[in-house]
Amino acid sequence: MTVVDEIKKKSVPVDEAIEKLLPVTEPAGLYEASRHIVKAGGKRLRPAVLLTSAEAVGGCADSAIPAAVAVELMHTFTLVHDDIMDNDPVRRGLPAVHTLWGEAGGILAGDTLYSKAIEIITESDSDPVRLLKSANILSRTCVGVCEGQWLDIDFETRDIVSAGEYLEMIEKKTAILFGAAAQIGAIIGGADEKVAQAMYDYGRLVGLGFQIYDDVLDLVTPEEVLGKRQGSDIFEGKRTLLMIHASEKGAIPRAFGKGADSSGSGTKEDIEEAIRVLTDSGSLAYVKDLAVGFVEEGKAKLDILPDSPKKQLLKDMADYMLYRTY
Amino acid sequence: MTVVDEIKKKSVPVDEAIEKLLPVTEPAGLYEASRHIVKAGGKRLRPAVLLTSAEAVGGCADSAIPAAVAVELMHTFTLVHDDIMDNDPVRRGLPAVHTLWGEAGGILAGDTLYSKAIEIITESDSDPVRLLKSANILSRTCVGVCEGQWLDIDFETRDIVSAGEYLEMIEKKTAILFGAAAQIGAIIGGADEKVAQAMYDYGRLVGLGFQIYDDVLDLVTPEEVLGKRQGSDIFEGKRTLLMIHASEKGAIPRAFGKGADSSGSGTKEDIEEAIRVLTDSGSLAYVKDLAVGFVEEGKAKLDILPDSPKKQLLKDMADYMLYRTY
Repeated sequence: MTVVDEIKKKSVPVDEAIEKLLPVTEPAGLYEASRHIVKAGGKRLRPAVLLTSAEAVGGCADSAIPAAVAVELMHTFTLVHDDIMDNDPVRRGLPAVHTLWGEAGGILAGDTLYSKAIEIITESDSDPVRLLKSANILSRTCVGVCEGQWLDIDFETRDIVSAGEYLEMIEKKTAILFGAAAQIGAIIGGADEKVAQAMYDYGRLVGLGFQIYDDVLDLVTPEEVLGKRQGSDIFEGKRTLLMIHASEKGAIPRAFGKGADSSGSGTKEDIEEAIRVLTDSGSLAYVKDLAVGFVEEGKAKLDILPDSPKKQLLKDMADYMLYRTY
Repeated sequence: MTVVDEIKKKSVPVDEAIEKLLPVTEPAGLYEASRHIVKAGGKRLRPAVLLTSAEAVGGCADSAIPAAVAVELMHTFTLVHDDIMDNDPVRRGLPAVHTLWGEAGGILAGDTLYSKAIEIITESDSDPVRLLKSANILSRTCVGVCEGQWLDIDFETRDIVSAGEYLEMIEKKTAILFGAAAQIGAIIGGADEKVAQAMYDYGRLVGLGFQIYDDVLDLVTPEEVLGKRQGSDIFEGKRTLLMIHASEKGAIPRAFGKGADSSGSGTKEDIEEAIRVLTDSGSLAYVKDLAVGFVEEGKAKLDILPDSPKKQLLKDMADYMLYRTY
């Protein structure tokens, strides 16, 4: 079975549990709004990491399913609120929650998802000390995600952002939730503190690689594969690590920040020019190397575990963060 | 010592703990935004209920202080997000969080307060099983508060709201957090499930009385005592229980929904007329009786406890919900 198949297989009981743990009750509108993005897809990568981590430390995936649901709802909550803050009308190919239910609806749906995440993890059937620790990690992670989003918004007001600052931002905004997923899986799976910490580092580092490589995928992957417009970061003038490096080298693609519309901006030629410019400046290589480096560093953290098919799967998942194309 | 003095006394260690548990760290702006409304005052009623409940069941208030902080932060989080949703620029006499830090800042400050609340309660020094239960109650309560706010917003789009619907809304939006405060205090104080449930009912019923009586206070209390414009609910055309009853009786004060500004609307005579109309229709009496009834029902739940000065203090606090004038 390929890693993609493994991730898909793990998403089945998670989706079933979401259906059970986040049903539409009264007031129905609130729960429809809360479920909208959860039900709109998503690869359930974080639940897959969590469940595999539980198995890799010798535990059973079943008892970790509520925690996996909690992590996915937490992730969704941040998407719903981010879309309001970033004024982004679309998510996962559908109208964002605030597009359909208004801003107040989006705020409340996000708050509900977060509350449900904590409710679900604190009443699941597992050792109370381990659950308490897991709820603590999840809430601390969420504080960190808020810090990361604050930095992200703050960066938009600034002329210059260093690579170090950018990395701190994506570590908080994205990587630590992967870390929390792996750590909580390990804790519920019965791991000791040292192993759980190593699993956190695994998730955090792999999450960094995942987010950094996103910039590359955005530029080099055709729309029919990625599901969103190729090069959209460039056309939108997004300050990614790729562009931070390119700016330092004075290598700005001609289409950067020029928008992409039917009037002719954002053409296939623009994308080819951008790839050429960013290859010549060494920016694409820099970002690829950095992403690969983080993923390799993350995989090395798994040395603490005895060899097993589940450990191998965690390694394969780490690699998948880079070669995923959807 | 009067009940007001007791509540003030209990707020001292809570405020000290807030200072310690919610410090300004990086990014400083996020934490300043998060602390803004917490530091702007508030009577710390919910922490006082929580700590007194812990003592009344034979526990020690000290070990419940982190939980009391968590409940206060949870309460503040709902205020911060509500102010965005209601487009309310002022809170506790100061600019609202979103007025100073923008909407994204307000959303993130609220999210941070909620996350910190769970973080604080899940890492406090108490029995893990009791803490896990407390975190579960807090998150379930928050789901309920979201439901209440959703109903509140929904009601604004409707022509008619029944007294029963209104009561369900304020029960969720306000009363259950008082219930959670009393229940969590009891749980951390060492109470069994039956006593903890009775304490939840005490808090919930007293919270209902508190919220219902707010309508009366708004109308009859002079600005110099209440700290906000007398009769503002009437001038703003707010659909309170008072006005739901009055509408059913066809008794609408002439200033209802007419606004209050320097052009002459919202005068002292308008307030006097409103009080007269709502007295004649029996609406003021209806609301007062209902509030008193809930508070008395709440106090009766305390029969499960042995008599003690702390039990008496819980009764006095319940009464205070009605005669408070600030």
